[in-house]
Amino acid sequence: MQETALRIRLITTFVLFSVFLFAQDVIYTYDFFELTLRHTAEGNPFRDVQIKGVFSQGDEEYEVTGFYDGDGKYVLRFMPCREGIWSYKTVSNVDSLHNHSGRFDCVKKSGSLHGVVRVANTYHFKYDDGTPFYPFGTTCYAWIHQEDEIQDETLTTLKEAPFNKIRMCVFPKWYELNEIEPAIYPYIGRAPDQWDFWRFNPAFFRHLEKQIRRLQDLGIECDLILFHPYDGGHWGFDRMTDDQDDFYLRYIIARLSAFRNIWWSVANEYDFLNEKQMEDWNRFFEILEEEDAYGHLRSIHNGLKWYDHSNPRVTHLSIQEDPWEDGGIGEYEQKIDRWKAKYKKPVLIDEMKYEGDIRYSFGDLTAQEMTDRFWYVYTKGAYATHGETYIHPKNIIWWARGGRLYGESPERIAFLKKIVESAPGSGFESFRGMEEDGNAVRAGEACYLFYIGARQPAERVIFLPEDKKYKLDIIDAWGMSLSKIEGTFSGKNLINLPGKPYTAVRAIRIH
Amino acid sequence: MQETALRIRLITTFVLFSVFLFAQDVIYTYDFFELTLRHTAEGNPFRDVQIKGVFSQGDEEYEVTGFYDGDGKYVLRFMPCREGIWSYKTVSNVDSLHNHSGRFDCVKKSGSLHGVVRVANTYHFKYDDGTPFYPFGTTCYAWIHQEDEIQDETLTTLKEAPFNKIRMCVFPKWYELNEIEPAIYPYIGRAPDQWDFWRFNPAFFRHLEKQIRRLQDLGIECDLILFHPYDGGHWGFDRMTDDQDDFYLRYIIARLSAFRNIWWSVANEYDFLNEKQMEDWNRFFEILEEEDAYGHLRSIHNGLKWYDHSNPRVTHLSIQEDPWEDGGIGEYEQKIDRWKAKYKKPVLIDEMKYEGDIRYSFGDLTAQEMTDRFWYVYTKGAYATHGETYIHPKNIIWWARGGRLYGESPERIAFLKKIVESAPGSGFESFRGMEEDGNAVRAGEACYLFYIGARQPAERVIFLPEDKKYKLDIIDAWGMSLSKIEGTFSGKNLINLPGKPYTAVRAIRIH
Repeated sequence: MQETALRIRLITTFVLFSVFLFAQDVIYTYDFFELTLRHTAEGNPFRDVQIKGVFSQGDEEYEVTGFYDGDGKYVLRFMPCREGIWSYKTVSNVDSLHNHSGRFDCVKKSGSLHGVVRVANTYHFKYDDGTPFYPFGTTCYAWIHQEDEIQDETLTTLKEAPFNKIRMCVFPKWYELNEIEPAIYPYIGRAPDQWDFWRFNPAFFRHLEKQIRRLQDLGIECDLILFHPYDGGHWGFDRMTDDQDDFYLRYIIARLSAFRNIWWSVANEYDFLNEKQMEDWNRFFEILEEEDAYGHLRSIHNGLKWYDHSNPRVTHLSIQEDPWEDGGIGEYEQKIDRWKAKYKKPVLIDEMKYEGDIRYSFGDLTAQEMTDRFWYVYTKGAYATHGETYIHPKNIIWWARGGRLYGESPERIAFLKKIVESAPGSGFESFRGMEEDGNAVRAGEACYLFYIGARQPAERVIFLPEDKKYKLDIIDAWGMSLSKIEGTFSGKNLINLPGKPYTAVRAIRIH
Repeated sequence: MQETALRIRLITTFVLFSVFLFAQDVIYTYDFFELTLRHTAEGNPFRDVQIKGVFSQGDEEYEVTGFYDGDGKYVLRFMPCREGIWSYKTVSNVDSLHNHSGRFDCVKKSGSLHGVVRVANTYHFKYDDGTPFYPFGTTCYAWIHQEDEIQDETLTTLKEAPFNKIRMCVFPKWYELNEIEPAIYPYIGRAPDQWDFWRFNPAFFRHLEKQIRRLQDLGIECDLILFHPYDGGHWGFDRMTDDQDDFYLRYIIARLSAFRNIWWSVANEYDFLNEKQMEDWNRFFEILEEEDAYGHLRSIHNGLKWYDHSNPRVTHLSIQEDPWEDGGIGEYEQKIDRWKAKYKKPVLIDEMKYEGDIRYSFGDLTAQEMTDRFWYVYTKGAYATHGETYIHPKNIIWWARGGRLYGESPERIAFLKKIVESAPGSGFESFRGMEEDGNAVRAGEACYLFYIGARQPAERVIFLPEDKKYKLDIIDAWGMSLSKIEGTFSGKNLINLPGKPYTAVRAIRIH
């Protein structure tokens, strides 16, 4: 036994030594290669210096834009999506940054590096390596702008929580319950509103990147909100000129698109940004499509005004709306069904109000209702995002500032997530599977899920294929338990239910 | 003391004796005078014999239609709405029934005889004597068609329940969970479908009248459904000819309009009666208006298809719809507000699904949700109707057959009723009284009610008049308790709430 331990220690030492030796030259797929070049810091390097890198392997070629990182450092980042030897060269309007070249070896890391999340099967998502991704989002708009201890606590909370996507803002937030000057700003200047919108603060972006990387380590996708209205002119990040907006957007794409877990959320509540027009949003989508070499997911989130998601640059719907307040008696097709039919894109209900008890009606859901809403959305074959707004003596409220979670829904969302992830295939398809009100989804013919919601029927009719056999479980979505129903089932079945709210039925094919 | 007891006994004896002596000649206001004349039973007296009565007092004159009650009896009924001596004479196409005359004395009975319920103050109701009537309905469609013991049990249940209006059908019901042949039918013939639609069965109508009178004794308005689709051709009462429909309608008006507690509900789920056209419904309203001398309330209840309640013969809206599934973020004006603004009539949500656990989604509400819906409707200045559908081993389910109530909402509806009835004025007016989602109503400036619903805010902003002072109570609508908030309040107030669902706030003016 001791011999084995020694051998492991020797191997570990050798591996660490090798990694040290080739640190700059061996890259994992979906991690990124970074090249830092030096040049003067004089003038306005953000504006004056252009640098690009061309990365190639065989026929495949990527052109990525570099960025100025302060202190005379010019950086190029590249995320290889394929293993093997990649070579690169630089192109710049500055001689000393032009025509640098080199190569590095990209190797596959088994396990967690699945790549970029992309739309799959019209309404769903997969990582590049084919692993299905079922978004279970949460919301911490301004967590990176808080005191260090709160940020650390947020990450500790996320480690235990079921969420694999987080909605968060680049710019800080100035809003009721959130009126805090952060320690660091994205621009050079003086708070609150004396900024040079042509000079970024690299330290701010390095901090943002550090936190995005820590999210990566937790397997969490960063649904990064590029513009938001919760500034109201306090800092003025919501009312820059068109050129300044584009300048910011290009800088952030250059810095962040090599992070595999980035999703671009062009705006939160876009329609509350009074200074912007529809042509601005269109232009931002264009820039994102052109400049992001990897094609990360792109969306825009509404306030009161619906966005036309038929824009082909929008990869998925990022909705704020109550999709269940609709339908009426006996109507199966509710909003989510109609949105899917119309746009042929995945639907994410990225705000459906928050569990909490604050005075505002966006943040006073019970845990039961938040849980119910999650179940509703997933049993329509769509995806949802959580948020929490319990009153806190220091206003450290999860929805905006992070910290701790106090609610009872995350545990139930974890339970739902396990059920969703255990189904085969890559996502549920909504269908008319119940005689009466209630949602039904299927993963092919292998797994069915029926959800009855806040009602309490003691019986319900469900429909399964006539020619297959299934075993059934009754699910208590609130109590987080499954109990088997004796027997096997096919076709139309009147199922006995416990007669209490938040009941679901799962059918798994046996032959 | 014994002397007093003796004196009371003597007075009682005298009063009873007097009533006996003048039994036919002294009538209470809002009770009815009945004149029975005899003639042959030959031919078809329902069709062949016409008899009318003209009742007058001073300038006031009422013409009422009589009806054939079987066994050669021809009956005229008249409900006097004013005390004093009334005289009458009959008009008939049959000599022996023509030109009978007489008089009777009408006296006011103190206490319970308030008269006919009528629309008051646009959106509300009052009895003829000015007493406000706040409808709190329930639903027992076919209770009069059940075995006697069940009918008696229904009345016993109603005696303890908070309901002061009942939706019930003339025709029996043939519908899932309700497939029963009644003991007695409205027509002469043979069950199930051999009827002479030109010959009524007076025994059936006498039974109906007995039960309407027993409802009167309990202070319950009879919201009588004249046509309904839950026959499906089994008996054919849903598919008579136009002439037969009108014949039935005129007969029932002749028999029942003298009952002060009658409301005419032309149909339940009118749009499911496939044999009828819109012109039929219009004609029924015309006949009701022409033939009913007292102008009882008239409505029609929808299934899936909205009825145009702007028809001036419709006195109030009798709706089936979920009025809360609407509005969206920050919208104060929801369906009820819009209906009131459009039609300028009282709004009754006469079906909003039922508390129960049956397999159908019309009958699987939790008691919490039923309670919440009641509160929602009343804090929009409208009125609601209850129903209950718990699975029963013999299918004796309240909604259709009556019997017992098993649910937990009636107790809570009673609690709400007390709060509504204790407010001054004749009904609540909806207004924008909350900063965020939630309903607010006011009774002038004397009493305000704010309802937050299934949410759990621990704070909410409410608005009161700036120049008046109010005391506040926190109401737990589910727990049925009131607790006083210390202090007096005016204008805009941030109120601390218990942070749990089904909370309301009541403000009562102190000066």
